[in-house]
Amino acid sequence: MQDSKRSSRRKLLRIGVAAGGAVLANRQIAKAAEDTPGQLGIPLGPYGERSPFEKAVRWRRDTKTPETGSSFTPLQDSVGTLTPSSLHYERHHAGIPTIDPAHHQLVIHGLVTRPLSLSVAEIRRLPSVTRTLVLECGGNSGSEWAAKTGPDVQRSYGLVSCSEWTGVPLSLLLSEVGVQPGASWVIAEGADACRMERSIPLAKAMDNILVAYGQNGEALRPAQGYPLRLIIPGWEGNANVKWLHSLKLTDQAYMARDETAKYTDLMPDGKARIFTYQMEAKSVITFPSGGQTLPGTGLYELTGLAWSGRGRIERVEITTDGGRSWVKANIQEPRLPIAFTRFRLPWRFDGRDAVIASRAVDESGYTQPTREALIGARGTNSNYHFNGIKYWKVQADGTVINVEA
Amino acid sequence: MQDSKRSSRRKLLRIGVAAGGAVLANRQIAKAAEDTPGQLGIPLGPYGERSPFEKAVRWRRDTKTPETGSSFTPLQDSVGTLTPSSLHYERHHAGIPTIDPAHHQLVIHGLVTRPLSLSVAEIRRLPSVTRTLVLECGGNSGSEWAAKTGPDVQRSYGLVSCSEWTGVPLSLLLSEVGVQPGASWVIAEGADACRMERSIPLAKAMDNILVAYGQNGEALRPAQGYPLRLIIPGWEGNANVKWLHSLKLTDQAYMARDETAKYTDLMPDGKARIFTYQMEAKSVITFPSGGQTLPGTGLYELTGLAWSGRGRIERVEITTDGGRSWVKANIQEPRLPIAFTRFRLPWRFDGRDAVIASRAVDESGYTQPTREALIGARGTNSNYHFNGIKYWKVQADGTVINVEA
Repeated sequence: MQDSKRSSRRKLLRIGVAAGGAVLANRQIAKAAEDTPGQLGIPLGPYGERSPFEKAVRWRRDTKTPETGSSFTPLQDSVGTLTPSSLHYERHHAGIPTIDPAHHQLVIHGLVTRPLSLSVAEIRRLPSVTRTLVLECGGNSGSEWAAKTGPDVQRSYGLVSCSEWTGVPLSLLLSEVGVQPGASWVIAEGADACRMERSIPLAKAMDNILVAYGQNGEALRPAQGYPLRLIIPGWEGNANVKWLHSLKLTDQAYMARDETAKYTDLMPDGKARIFTYQMEAKSVITFPSGGQTLPGTGLYELTGLAWSGRGRIERVEITTDGGRSWVKANIQEPRLPIAFTRFRLPWRFDGRDAVIASRAVDESGYTQPTREALIGARGTNSNYHFNGIKYWKVQADGTVINVEA
Repeated sequence: MQDSKRSSRRKLLRIGVAAGGAVLANRQIAKAAEDTPGQLGIPLGPYGERSPFEKAVRWRRDTKTPETGSSFTPLQDSVGTLTPSSLHYERHHAGIPTIDPAHHQLVIHGLVTRPLSLSVAEIRRLPSVTRTLVLECGGNSGSEWAAKTGPDVQRSYGLVSCSEWTGVPLSLLLSEVGVQPGASWVIAEGADACRMERSIPLAKAMDNILVAYGQNGEALRPAQGYPLRLIIPGWEGNANVKWLHSLKLTDQAYMARDETAKYTDLMPDGKARIFTYQMEAKSVITFPSGGQTLPGTGLYELTGLAWSGRGRIERVEITTDGGRSWVKANIQEPRLPIAFTRFRLPWRFDGRDAVIASRAVDESGYTQPTREALIGARGTNSNYHFNGIKYWKVQADGTVINVEA
């Protein structure tokens, strides 16, 4: 980069912190339109696409069985508080089934008085609600427990996304089928090839779970469970069963593969915590973050995302000196419960190493713990439910790397 | 439809209004999974698509110049409060330019102390804000003034959409360039082939306008102004200049084509209202709506969208008897200012003609007027700013048509 450009950028980026009084470079006005076409552009179209200059995609590990695994949302490119449906993270166990909604049924059976089979069209006639909610894999940021194998925010934190979901309260369906005395669990089963199933306590099912058919203003995407899925506010993604086709009321949990062999937390004493559905408060700086390079010194908007499975984010604090001092970030309103909350802070990069992190506090008063405190309590046997404070190091040359603190 | 099916559907749809006590058909449980694949599904992917079974698209009039015109959002298929970016309405005057953000500049000049040219990357470093906002064409529902040429909600009301926008406050940029005494207008110009331009009063420019680069969690879509556009909360879409490349401070409005020959409201006395930027409170029932057919009698969720350019929706009332009686609809929270507000009401179709409509009241106390009151005040010379109460007629056979009242 040329010195003159560097200089003018440094001046430009005085903007903001003390807006109003700052002096900007008085550059020669560029002929802004010179690269724009002098001829008619692209016509109106039926279903729009993003710009060919936008390249953000989900990332996945190369594997021989790409039908089972995870793909990660490019959080480093995120703006605002929503995840585009096309970039919502994926976690599939047997690939995405192609389901014709005209032939799909949701069966509710087991310990009920009036078993019921509902078509998608019938479900869409019922009273519905809309909620903007985070969905996070229980294994998100698992790479932070020990080896820090995720070099960037996408690969280390990208198993979380936020959408506006629309559907029918599960409690409404359960009250209609008549839950029998003795029923205490709901076994939800997907219509994917492996028939993925999870056990949901009846109390939660009667509380705030949705049988969702809408995502971000249209039908669920196939990768998020088209045409029907469970949405369980604040609970790990795996329990939010996709391609939902069966709900069975039972008197005990099923001890299914994904709640015994997987999605359990092995503690230092060799015992495993199971049914750890609840996701806790968490935050991560998305810019600047691992793998990015700042083009020079000067003012930047440091920004990231915070969320909690227990409700609203109360505040987010930021350190730029490795945790010695913390300042309150600006929080984008409205702060919706269990939704992405965007935080921001103007920050001047002065060309010296800076270790940056964010720390979220939710409305329950819970404060995001340090990684050390988490490891002290739970060891490093488990790959799940990491929500420790996340540090990035901005190095003198502007490159950013994943560090421990 | 077979009688047995009809009967069970009628029973099913007792659900909701008196949830808890209703009796559902005890159908034989379908083998819900019989149509689902027994083999691995589609692999994880970089950028997801919607289901091939989802067919909703924007509608446009057939024309020899599809680069200029409008395409309409399929509101009849909408759920929740957001519009998918791929279905956001379009109104282009010279097609969509293909702009490389690496070469695009925003120039701020005219009556300023320090003229400035900013790259997209520089703008993205500045302090930003995120707001969920409706964008509505000043000509939306213009077909309702007289001839009711829009048979369905898409073609009559589809020039309105709602997105989460992220960008930099225009006031911040203006304070940095130093507005000179005497400046009272900002002339915004787009980089499309026709260099579409609009005049914005300086007071509004210093209030709450955004120079937006983000839409629904990613970059603006090309059809919505990639890489930069104005977002002017509550003002008609045309003033929200897309592909923004120049902001010129002046001491008078430009009287550009789109604020004189177009986007003015010709009154009955032959004089035209001009600079009628402000959009008022409005609502429309999206289901059931024109062109749809109810498959039978029974319970439905009647639903629609309300919004106001002046702030929050305070309440929405619904009539199902042609305006003789009105009841309050259920409003989906949170009610965000100048955003789509979803309303719903369980409604039993008994097989007799029903004339339905919604009526919105915003937080300023303004009540959506009747069509007759609007025409009484403004005549029918103009095609713009129709926000009258919108009636649909559900006919005995379940078909729905556009009617006057």
